[in-house]
Amino acid sequence: MNTHTPTQTAPAPSLATRFLDADAMRTLVQRIGLPGCIAGVAARIEREFLRWGDYDKSARLACHSRDGVIELMPVADERLFAFKYVNGHPRNTAAGLPTVMAFGVLADVASGAPTLLAELTLATAIRTAAMSALAARTLARPGARTMALIGNGAQSEFQALALRDLLGVRTLRVFDTDTRATDKLVANLAGEGLAIQRSASAADAARDADIVTTCTADKTRATILTPDMLAPGQHLNAVGGDCPGKTELHPEVLRRASVFVEYEPQTRIEGDLQQMPADFPVTELWRVLAGERPGRQRDDEITVFDSVGFALEDLAALAYFDEQAARLGLGQPVDLVLRAEDPKDLFGSLRGAAARLAA
Amino acid sequence: MNTHTPTQTAPAPSLATRFLDADAMRTLVQRIGLPGCIAGVAARIEREFLRWGDYDKSARLACHSRDGVIELMPVADERLFAFKYVNGHPRNTAAGLPTVMAFGVLADVASGAPTLLAELTLATAIRTAAMSALAARTLARPGARTMALIGNGAQSEFQALALRDLLGVRTLRVFDTDTRATDKLVANLAGEGLAIQRSASAADAARDADIVTTCTADKTRATILTPDMLAPGQHLNAVGGDCPGKTELHPEVLRRASVFVEYEPQTRIEGDLQQMPADFPVTELWRVLAGERPGRQRDDEITVFDSVGFALEDLAALAYFDEQAARLGLGQPVDLVLRAEDPKDLFGSLRGAAARLAA
Repeated sequence: MNTHTPTQTAPAPSLATRFLDADAMRTLVQRIGLPGCIAGVAARIEREFLRWGDYDKSARLACHSRDGVIELMPVADERLFAFKYVNGHPRNTAAGLPTVMAFGVLADVASGAPTLLAELTLATAIRTAAMSALAARTLARPGARTMALIGNGAQSEFQALALRDLLGVRTLRVFDTDTRATDKLVANLAGEGLAIQRSASAADAARDADIVTTCTADKTRATILTPDMLAPGQHLNAVGGDCPGKTELHPEVLRRASVFVEYEPQTRIEGDLQQMPADFPVTELWRVLAGERPGRQRDDEITVFDSVGFALEDLAALAYFDEQAARLGLGQPVDLVLRAEDPKDLFGSLRGAAARLAA
Repeated sequence: MNTHTPTQTAPAPSLATRFLDADAMRTLVQRIGLPGCIAGVAARIEREFLRWGDYDKSARLACHSRDGVIELMPVADERLFAFKYVNGHPRNTAAGLPTVMAFGVLADVASGAPTLLAELTLATAIRTAAMSALAARTLARPGARTMALIGNGAQSEFQALALRDLLGVRTLRVFDTDTRATDKLVANLAGEGLAIQRSASAADAARDADIVTTCTADKTRATILTPDMLAPGQHLNAVGGDCPGKTELHPEVLRRASVFVEYEPQTRIEGDLQQMPADFPVTELWRVLAGERPGRQRDDEITVFDSVGFALEDLAALAYFDEQAARLGLGQPVDLVLRAEDPKDLFGSLRGAAARLAA
């Protein structure tokens, strides 16, 4: 037979994946508002960190090259699998490209089908800032109002808003070796209710600040903070030291402090902690959130959150933005994987319905 | 000012990623033809395997759950980073879903920018068959014409065509515990120039075949081939044992054979090799392709290719299909990552051009 009768087969179950491309993600963040996104992601991170034991965790897979790193960050529980692709290439800006680019996927553990594909560059900045704010809320002195912000690049404004909203920071002391970066930060944060003071140096910015946030991007062993810059009772939010060979804190700073981390096996390789012996004591932050371990114990204690970024924060961000996109009707369905009419007949999917009937 | 003058900024460098969705990939394979794809991917795999030392390799990251596995498979050289997402859920077919679904990404190591996003379910079947054929060409007896094909599911026809074209197989002896799978294979391969004999059992199929291919899907420790089924000089192409707890060969089969693998550290965990002691001798296939090690040395030797699937095969497939898509003008540009006007100003990308000018 060589007729062209339409196929009678029932349609295969939909395997469409929601795709939030760069425009859709930007629109989503604009529609919710950045403060709303930061608060929403922070709440979701806290919720998932309180389920720490339910997750299958591993240190991220990093592929280092001369000018940067490309990483895959997977995590899963019984229901959701998530991973993020993210790079870090400090020299990219010279070519007009971002230092960090990211996208990620949520998948259904029961079937393996990918359900969400999303641009994650903005979401990475949001979840990093949300994580910092969650840590500071647990570790900084009550009443902390002044924050030094050292490194005024792509991550800096997100940190400022997160610490403003979740902690009550009102004054920023900002410094960057690139004064244009500071100009940009000052312009971007105008009208955001923050008093901004430009500092002449990192030491000047850090002096007597309640919180010192470092978010520098150089892929080098830098020493942004030295012990002489510290004041008793400070909380250090060390965001930029997040790769082997990329640090921001002098080792003596860590020795004088109580150090808190996201996922210890990963931070030992990537964080400022990489400078310390393998038995240097640290506390995983989830234990503090869960009430298992104390956070800050004395007013004059120096606390450090040695942040490197952990896959569970990306899962939380993906899950949050997936829900919000569904609520607001954003994103497009795409066929990221094949829908065969007969799943056991992959070969047959190469022929049209007419050819199949004619056979 | 509150005017809406269009921005004067030069456009940011394009970060568009080529997206080959399920339809585009199917069209691409149809336009080239399946035999052409198999030959093209096999040639590319061979080329990349001969550059083995240039690659940064790791065993894939596998996330096992009750009903299946989700894996991330990254690999990179100085120029290209590739990864594949792939699942394996044998029970999916009961719900009308494929057992295996896959997609992958190529990225530029110098900048970290993702350049290709592609559906890879078909491509996975193609590269698996191409890899099997490359191995058999090196390991099977010259003049091998008869192949037993045990397991007649989604991968089986691809194996048949690859071994037909790259090796000269002319007769298939086919068997599956599910006779409908065999019906489907027989119908699909009609007119492909292969004599197909239905066998009553795996033992019946394997008897005196030059090559025995096993591609079964159960996530269990199965014993598809036992020592009594073997004939001297056979080449065993063991495709289905590719997960911890998922094997196809009786350990004694491996002991009687010379065993060849893709990437030893991964195969020791995932392959039929998982049943053997850590010092059981194996040879990585690239060494045979490169002429560093012998393949088959005697006519009566039994050779085994313990195939599990390695990330470098996916990189080869991604690179091949990327070139072919460019040649044929297939795929759509998508913004998988954000293009900020000013890469140092991620925060500013949340405002429109008008808002920026008005500030």
